[in-house]
Amino acid sequence: MSNKALVNLQTFIGKEFNSSPSPFMQWLKPIVLAAEAGKLTFQYTIRKEMTNPAAILHGGVTAAIIDDVIGAAMFSFGEPYFYTSINLNVDYLAPAFEGDKIIAETSITKKGKQIVNAQCEVWNADRTKLIAKGYTNLFKTEFKR
Amino acid sequence: MSNKALVNLQTFIGKEFNSSPSPFMQWLKPIVLAAEAGKLTFQYTIRKEMTNPAAILHGGVTAAIIDDVIGAAMFSFGEPYFYTSINLNVDYLAPAFEGDKIIAETSITKKGKQIVNAQCEVWNADRTKLIAKGYTNLFKTEFKR
Amino acid sequence: MSNKALVNLQTFIGKEFNSSPSPFMQWLKPIVLAAEAGKLTFQYTIRKEMTNPAAILHGGVTAAIIDDVIGAAMFSFGEPYFYTSINLNVDYLAPAFEGDKIIAETSITKKGKQIVNAQCEVWNADRTKLIAKGYTNLFKTEFKR
Amino acid sequence: MSNKALVNLQTFIGKEFNSSPSPFMQWLKPIVLAAEAGKLTFQYTIRKEMTNPAAILHGGVTAAIIDDVIGAAMFSFGEPYFYTSINLNVDYLAPAFEGDKIIAETSITKKGKQIVNAQCEVWNADRTKLIAKGYTNLFKTEFKR
Repeated sequence: MSNKALVNLQTFIGKEFNSSPSPFMQWLKPIVLAAEAGKLTFQYTIRKEMTNPAAILHGGVTAAIIDDVIGAAMFSFGEPYFYTSINLNVDYLAPAFEGDKIIAETSITKKGKQIVNAQCEVWNADRTKLIAKGYTNLFKTEFKR
Repeated sequence: MSNKALVNLQTFIGKEFNSSPSPFMQWLKPIVLAAEAGKLTFQYTIRKEMTNPAAILHGGVTAAIIDDVIGAAMFSFGEPYFYTSINLNVDYLAPAFEGDKIIAETSITKKGKQIVNAQCEVWNADRTKLIAKGYTNLFKTEFKR
Repeated sequence: MSNKALVNLQTFIGKEFNSSPSPFMQWLKPIVLAAEAGKLTFQYTIRKEMTNPAAILHGGVTAAIIDDVIGAAMFSFGEPYFYTSINLNVDYLAPAFEGDKIIAETSITKKGKQIVNAQCEVWNADRTKLIAKGYTNLFKTEFKR
Repeated sequence: MSNKALVNLQTFIGKEFNSSPSPFMQWLKPIVLAAEAGKLTFQYTIRKEMTNPAAILHGGVTAAIIDDVIGAAMFSFGEPYFYTSINLNVDYLAPAFEGDKIIAETSITKKGKQIVNAQCEVWNADRTKLIAKGYTNLFKTEFKR
């Protein structure tokens, strides 16, 4: 089966994914490190506007990155339907700082008929420190994209 | 007790809180609707860069708003110590659209010696539709701000 | 509309609900304090076998109570279909001890076509201390009971 | 360092851990399959009293198993202090049935000075089907056991 969404992501490996249809993803400015169906690895640079008063990656942005890259992982299946997040849980494990590069990597725990359970780990650039983990359940809607 | 952080927030009631020490909060551009210790009500306008490919408020931004305003609620206690999020859980209930105004309102479920449990509801402008609910546990660090 | 499940629950107000079709609920031995569609109030006595090594209500039993009474709240709608839990989140706020009576009370945050978002608070007997809060998303299956 | 709690668990490998100081763990009747510091593998047989009205493992019992075995994993570090659960999140992935054997296996994501982030997977007996995953944050108290 041809999967245009995945093939498109793969053409951006090593580059910023600047053709996302998601305006918020464009703000996050991810670089695609790897892309398989359901398993995306994106890298981000922490800009000042992503930080909190302690000059640390804002926990809200961490959550946003996790939700965003998992959403992109749903697109990477090449299915015609939108998935919508039912819930998102994030555990915060370590800080990251302005200017740091961080890596978010998704995995699919279960892909059911109607509901997908997925997770995402956020690591520092050399993958020695886990910054956060997120877990989500998504619902396959009837809406085509 | 004088609580400068809260008094400062209250001077912005009806206005954009553009003096936040948080760069990411500055990006969110909240308008302060009400401010008591632990209970903040902020309003946001959904800009295009906050949306997903379906032109709906991006779930990641919803999570970010919840984390941010709860963080601000911690500041509103006027304590010298930073709080750090242990975890954040968001349940998504209804969509909101580009251009919509939305309201986020925090409440403190328990303020323990070391750990605070807080929640935040996100409503549409006339509070007829609940868009999301978030729950978080925060840890009082030893770091002074 | 006649709703036999709810009417049946209401006949047990003030008494142990010992006719539950759920074997695990029978183990929990709830007393029905109040019952409306979606909003159940059950009381439990903490038996020794519900405690942890510190003689405190076991956090697992707290979670089990929350899941169980929310499941019963789904039955209280009188619908023919089974609901299945997608996820359950519990925040632990205060301890309860062997011999204590505790109260679990459900509320429905949103009842969608396919997905219900519900919560449950667990209180001490005189409702002065919140012991735990739980949040869950449930999916309406095609299976009739 | 001598770690009596772990050594004790290891003497039960292949046998029911019937000397637990936790009354609720005694009710769950786990068989110890493997035990290292922080990583416990317990097996359970689903008894009727652990099921819901559909004759399926009750979601509350699944949550209770996860909380219980993670609590035991904290003991397996051999530290003198009690850990208390801050929160517990469970994602439900597949059913298990009365009479089935299931396996719960813990892992520690981060062991901080004050807070531990841990998870637990629940599998069917031959580990071909993931039944549930749980995530928790625990707080190291000052109370010695």
